Amino acid sequence: MTTQQLVSEINRKKSFLCIGLDSDINKIPQHLLREEDPIFSFNKAIIDATQHLAVAYKPNTAFYEAEGLAGWTSLQKTIEYLNDRYPEVFTIADAKRGDIGNTSSMYAKAFFENLGFDSVTVAPYMGKDSVEPFLEFHDRHTILLALTSNPGAFDFQTKSLDELELYKRVLETSKTWKNAQNLMYVVGATKASFLADIRKIVPDSFLLVPGVGAQGGSLLEVCEYGLNETVGLLINASRSIIYASDGKDFASAATSQAAALQLEMEQVLNAR
Amino acid sequence: MTTQQLVSEINRKKSFLCIGLDSDINKIPQHLLREEDPIFSFNKAIIDATQHLAVAYKPNTAFYEAEGLAGWTSLQKTIEYLNDRYPEVFTIADAKRGDIGNTSSMYAKAFFENLGFDSVTVAPYMGKDSVEPFLEFHDRHTILLALTSNPGAFDFQTKSLDELELYKRVLETSKTWKNAQNLMYVVGATKASFLADIRKIVPDSFLLVPGVGAQGGSLLEVCEYGLNETVGLLINASRSIIYASDGKDFASAATSQAAALQLEMEQVLNAR
Repeated sequence: MTTQQLVSEINRKKSFLCIGLDSDINKIPQHLLREEDPIFSFNKAIIDATQHLAVAYKPNTAFYEAEGLAGWTSLQKTIEYLNDRYPEVFTIADAKRGDIGNTSSMYAKAFFENLGFDSVTVAPYMGKDSVEPFLEFHDRHTILLALTSNPGAFDFQTKSLDELELYKRVLETSKTWKNAQNLMYVVGATKASFLADIRKIVPDSFLLVPGVGAQGGSLLEVCEYGLNETVGLLINASRSIIYASDGKDFASAATSQAAALQLEMEQVLNAR
Repeated sequence: MTTQQLVSEINRKKSFLCIGLDSDINKIPQHLLREEDPIFSFNKAIIDATQHLAVAYKPNTAFYEAEGLAGWTSLQKTIEYLNDRYPEVFTIADAKRGDIGNTSSMYAKAFFENLGFDSVTVAPYMGKDSVEPFLEFHDRHTILLALTSNPGAFDFQTKSLDELELYKRVLETSKTWKNAQNLMYVVGATKASFLADIRKIVPDSFLLVPGVGAQGGSLLEVCEYGLNETVGLLINASRSIIYASDGKDFASAATSQAAALQLEMEQVLNAR
């Protein structure tokens, strides 16, 4: 998917909501455990119930890998369902991969070719040649970790690296990489005030913002500092939507939670 | 596996060789493509042909994920084969994972419980709470990226972070984490002279050293700077061993390459 197509969808749906499919067999409603593939059934129901309110879905690979082959099967069925049924939504493999060049090429193949995601999250620690193999793919997007939403973000990311905080150094340096136009960045909502500085370095890039909802970040604060001319934001919520209810009404409860966030987003977009 | 068991195996085999199973369907000998699971058949033959010379095997998850479900199946069969047939070898999932706490717990479950690896490689960028969930597992090992073997290592890892290079800061900081005794570190062989400094920070830890062989690192130089009292090194070679021949003699060619490295290691151990 092109960035322009993503922006069109955002304007059409008046939403820049991404829903994180952190689907855990121990947390989904009990009655789904009777299904042949409970995780896929859960994801399908969540997607069908929210697809008019969200522009992106983000399965987190850890939750699928934890179940081994069965989990990888659920992941594959989920991305196939999204691509077949809702080709207009943007898909993100939240995989946080990254390795030496020839290995990163294999990860890029895994997520862009084999599974068919529009984008994948990538860790920057190993530098340029660990990221560029992902950037080679036309109309696919590499979402680089810059400033994450967890407490450990302050261990290294916010420390000064040659007089510039590491996450800013990552942003600056990544702009010089080949096909940098295919980069987006992960910036945690729990550090919304950092977004002003980040926008000075990457004014035009899309930012994927986790941490709204269960992790406590504020949507309005993120918008205040993070919006750019083409919106430029995907705000992710996972647990607060997908686990809104653990009963048979889980899908409609997810609709309600997603609708509340979409409404806030619509108001923000209308107020611009 | 305990560290003590690993050290015993090193002394018994006079080897600290780790063989990287970067098994690529496009590079394995053509005649194997007729097998039901060519990648597993390849791995099994390589393992059988080298298990008396190596103390560890390191499947790189990227190469398996690139083939989707079939690849994950090959990975699962490979680790099951290693655990059943050669329980004395140390197994490493080279996965370079890392995410926020609740997600890293799922990755730890995937590799330690579901697949049953002794260890997994983890990226440090997201800090303490992204690594500690791996460290909770008793007699399982978390191999943290410190200084990697690729050119991109110089983009961030060797830059100064608050007056200490990032990779040294990672080493220092990680020592304060809960269950830090379960940490090992990745240190690339292409930067062997850095090992002297690294040993000052982590004198007792095991170091997994990639980059010998295809990537050009020197075994003797690594030993000169990296050996400690209990050896403390696992030196990895992947492509130079597993792709030593692309003919029907690939397994015996792998034996020869592994034997040459084992002999060098035996000489180093005898000379101490």
